[in-house]
Amino acid sequence: MLELKGDERLDYLLAEDLRIIQSPSVFSFSLDAVLLSKFAYLPIQKGNILDLCTGNGVIPLLLSTRTKGHITGVEIQDRLYDMAERSIAYNGLSERIKMIHGDIKDMPKQLGYGKYDVVTCNPPYFKTPGQEEINKNEHYAIARHEIYCTLEDVIRVSGRLVRPGGKVALVHRPGRFLEIVELMRKYKIEPKRIRFVYPKLGKEANTLLIEGTKDGKPDLKILPPLIVYRDNNEYTEEVHEILYGKE
Amino acid sequence: MLELKGDERLDYLLAEDLRIIQSPSVFSFSLDAVLLSKFAYLPIQKGNILDLCTGNGVIPLLLSTRTKGHITGVEIQDRLYDMAERSIAYNGLSERIKMIHGDIKDMPKQLGYGKYDVVTCNPPYFKTPGQEEINKNEHYAIARHEIYCTLEDVIRVSGRLVRPGGKVALVHRPGRFLEIVELMRKYKIEPKRIRFVYPKLGKEANTLLIEGTKDGKPDLKILPPLIVYRDNNEYTEEVHEILYGKE
Repeated sequence: MLELKGDERLDYLLAEDLRIIQSPSVFSFSLDAVLLSKFAYLPIQKGNILDLCTGNGVIPLLLSTRTKGHITGVEIQDRLYDMAERSIAYNGLSERIKMIHGDIKDMPKQLGYGKYDVVTCNPPYFKTPGQEEINKNEHYAIARHEIYCTLEDVIRVSGRLVRPGGKVALVHRPGRFLEIVELMRKYKIEPKRIRFVYPKLGKEANTLLIEGTKDGKPDLKILPPLIVYRDNNEYTEEVHEILYGKE
Repeated sequence: MLELKGDERLDYLLAEDLRIIQSPSVFSFSLDAVLLSKFAYLPIQKGNILDLCTGNGVIPLLLSTRTKGHITGVEIQDRLYDMAERSIAYNGLSERIKMIHGDIKDMPKQLGYGKYDVVTCNPPYFKTPGQEEINKNEHYAIARHEIYCTLEDVIRVSGRLVRPGGKVALVHRPGRFLEIVELMRKYKIEPKRIRFVYPKLGKEANTLLIEGTKDGKPDLKILPPLIVYRDNNEYTEEVHEILYGKE
């Protein structure tokens, strides 16, 4: 029994045999969330994984196909928390994915310091908007703008929740790249793997995937470029496979 | 009249109508130097441009095809300085390219603070080697290892020589990337343009082109990926054009 509310839809989660509740007026997941779910290191057999700013739960759902570990999602917006809970139940994953309705800034105290093997986050990308934009669509404003948490909040909290040697993986915009790297080092998360995402081969990067190791030693790798579209505007083979699976 | 010494050769400088003295036992320029020469911002009509760690003068020679400004090269090794001087004279460029035989660390005092519009450098990539490696080939050891100057020397000196608003452009290895960015900010050179160079499309980056503006504001762009080889091991169109010119 699944109850859909308002303009919600039950969408396919693409390559995976999963369904997810979305709503055009509240929240729909982005390619960035899917890329982060594929990019992040995960322990396969067991472990504790935490996804911050989880939205409608897209990242925990996708991660659940790559690990048998326990996954926790944290979401501050009641409406999105509720969508995530129902999607997790619909997919029969309530035993493995636990949702917390709360503020990520409270999580170190609530969940404990250094308890997680992996922390992922697809945070709000933009600085705080004007009141007008918030009034227009509060749900999207909160997901996109640093209203409830700043980039520094995300990285500070991640650094406290992850265990020494554990990983923190983020997706963000290249314009914030140097800030991300400085904040990661400030909170003892050493950047180890970076992958730049380019919309097309001849274009500037518009997205950045970055993973660091808590208390790790400097040893940075710049992974192969991830190109989203071919010249003919079709997805490249790699992105098509991430979204729709192997043919 | 050109005197070639020992095993020196007079090589074509590829796409340009220039020749350059090289020697397999002393110094040959690399693709990295050519890529930096194309990557760096240059004033076209006039200006003062400085190339540090200039080797056999490959970067000043290549830059001279893109600007009418004055170019200065600094090289500490007597043998390479001498090769550069003879190449510059052979190409009839002694009026526009001036070579200095000296230590880059002395240049701010010798040349003046904030006098240059652009500073370029293809520095030694590796930390100081053991004595054995130095004994094997001193010329290559000095060009490749931080024997006479460290990365911090290069960036500190560049920051002093460039004028406010002027550019500093470097080529280096991605493994030193975070160090470069931190040092640039330490010496008030704000990173603005980064281009990662990948040997092939599916491979990790092995080279990094980075340009910053002295006293600039944060606004970083990650330029399109530069792929060197196609899957069939031929140069990509872009690199072929950089090396051999338009067909």
